[in-house]
Amino acid sequence: MLLDHGSGGRATHELVTRFFAPLLSNPFLDAMNDSAVMDFLGDRLAFTTDSYVVDPVIFPGGNIGSLAVHGTVNDLAMSGARPMVLTAGFILEEGLDLSLLETIVRSMAEAAREAGVTVVAGDTKVVPKGKGDKIFITTAGVGIVPPGVSLGGQNARPGDAVLINGTIGDHGTAILCSREGLSMEGVIQSDSAPLHTLVAAILTACAHVHVLRDPTRGGVATTLNEIASQSRVGIRLFEEALPIREDVAGACEILGLDPLYMANEGKVLVVLPQEEAGKALDAMRRHPLGRHAALIGEVMADHPGRVTLRTRIGGHRIVDMLRGEPLPRIC
Amino acid sequence: MLLDHGSGGRATHELVTRFFAPLLSNPFLDAMNDSAVMDFLGDRLAFTTDSYVVDPVIFPGGNIGSLAVHGTVNDLAMSGARPMVLTAGFILEEGLDLSLLETIVRSMAEAAREAGVTVVAGDTKVVPKGKGDKIFITTAGVGIVPPGVSLGGQNARPGDAVLINGTIGDHGTAILCSREGLSMEGVIQSDSAPLHTLVAAILTACAHVHVLRDPTRGGVATTLNEIASQSRVGIRLFEEALPIREDVAGACEILGLDPLYMANEGKVLVVLPQEEAGKALDAMRRHPLGRHAALIGEVMADHPGRVTLRTRIGGHRIVDMLRGEPLPRIC
Repeated sequence: MLLDHGSGGRATHELVTRFFAPLLSNPFLDAMNDSAVMDFLGDRLAFTTDSYVVDPVIFPGGNIGSLAVHGTVNDLAMSGARPMVLTAGFILEEGLDLSLLETIVRSMAEAAREAGVTVVAGDTKVVPKGKGDKIFITTAGVGIVPPGVSLGGQNARPGDAVLINGTIGDHGTAILCSREGLSMEGVIQSDSAPLHTLVAAILTACAHVHVLRDPTRGGVATTLNEIASQSRVGIRLFEEALPIREDVAGACEILGLDPLYMANEGKVLVVLPQEEAGKALDAMRRHPLGRHAALIGEVMADHPGRVTLRTRIGGHRIVDMLRGEPLPRIC
Repeated sequence: MLLDHGSGGRATHELVTRFFAPLLSNPFLDAMNDSAVMDFLGDRLAFTTDSYVVDPVIFPGGNIGSLAVHGTVNDLAMSGARPMVLTAGFILEEGLDLSLLETIVRSMAEAAREAGVTVVAGDTKVVPKGKGDKIFITTAGVGIVPPGVSLGGQNARPGDAVLINGTIGDHGTAILCSREGLSMEGVIQSDSAPLHTLVAAILTACAHVHVLRDPTRGGVATTLNEIASQSRVGIRLFEEALPIREDVAGACEILGLDPLYMANEGKVLVVLPQEEAGKALDAMRRHPLGRHAALIGEVMADHPGRVTLRTRIGGHRIVDMLRGEPLPRIC
């Protein structure tokens, strides 16, 4: 097991598809979406889980507790589900400061209240000093998918537009700057936020959304590669259209990293027919979490499985999944 | 945070009731049962989660993968639910041997198949060497509670009988012997097993079951203290009736521990009216996981919140929750 297996890029993708998937194979896992949607007593429920190991545990714009809630709420929202209940498993390191734990659990409770979800079950384990790192949280979530909503990474179609609700790379850059002690003019904040009401607004405005996915670990580049591969389409990004904060761009340049590969925790990629792009952008821009929404790319029949970037000067380059330098513990 | 906070005894109880519960308070968490049962779209669903950090990760009778499935299936079964879906979050340490991971995930898949549950969602994180310990798994589970079934730690009544489906302390003793390199005549095996079909058999045979609870961390002693406290009743155990394997008793004597405080992973405590005790024992003894079922105690109005043991020679001693020497990473 290499650190890179946790970066969310090519190595993670291979670990999941070549190792875990064959062993645990079933139609829900095999669909490789952010949540599994299944018929359950005549309704459709969405299920998801994520483990959080972010370092540092408190960062500008949030902490591991609020992040765990937002991340799981967002994975449910990506299937169009209304998030309902969460569970939380805590793995605590011996010696963890109780006041730090309190800060984290308070944020968790507040984030859950804001998102309208109930933490119905929890568990706590303690490991000896040096066998963990302060706190790891694993949240699982269940939501209800409204009738008629059917989203998935396999649904992108040539001619679709690719939208995002705001600036790219904020969370990952905030974590790395915080970890490296790098400070720009002002502190870069994580974008960690619950996206379910924004998603509901998009789905109300647009009847034909094909894909929603939150570009977390591995960033926009990796997530779009997953969609391109699942849908067997090409995706072209427009460099000049990518919303990137100046401080994030600056920090990434210093760190030698590309914002397209940096994790986001309050962003959603929306793939839908061009005809609905305007309505989706309007709906997003009316929402507090969508003010900087932008159309950033298009889906093509050419080069299935490949993501390319049309640069400002009109050239094209291939945008692969994240690989190489590992970016551990971003979430 | 002390290691003892993870032992499942008094310290864990206080961490959960005094720290987590007030922060995350809601009727489902506050009920302090193995799963939360809630009305959901007109049905009743049970939700639960547990993190597994057992050391060693492979032990006689199972490994962390099968244990994670059994533990979550059992927590659902304790509410009378039919287990349906699981999610699994993996926190892997850099350098983890892939063949070890494969063994564990294979066991998990097999245990899920045996228990008839589907692992619908998963997540993998990797932490640097020395920031974790090989593998931690957090499973969450959802099940369906049949109409009319209402179980909970608050339902024990004076006059009830206390039953168990077999020998006490096998799992905890197996883990400690394995960790300490202690070998008795033959190797002590964990009792890790899925209890949902045994529970279904009990509920079919008996219409008035009050409490089902699996005595995991903290053992039979701690679990009965929780029930005594939640139901505000006294519980008396009969020493001569406690089914304890000879090798477990011997190992516990060498380790200076009491089997009543050792974790079980394939046992259920059943509290129900005396009149139904015979039917419940018959139903359990007909099931492969209940061959050594026994009536081990009774519920009394006296001394609410207290568990006592009537010894072989007719004396009585108080059986408190686990406290003192921590027993970390038993599950």
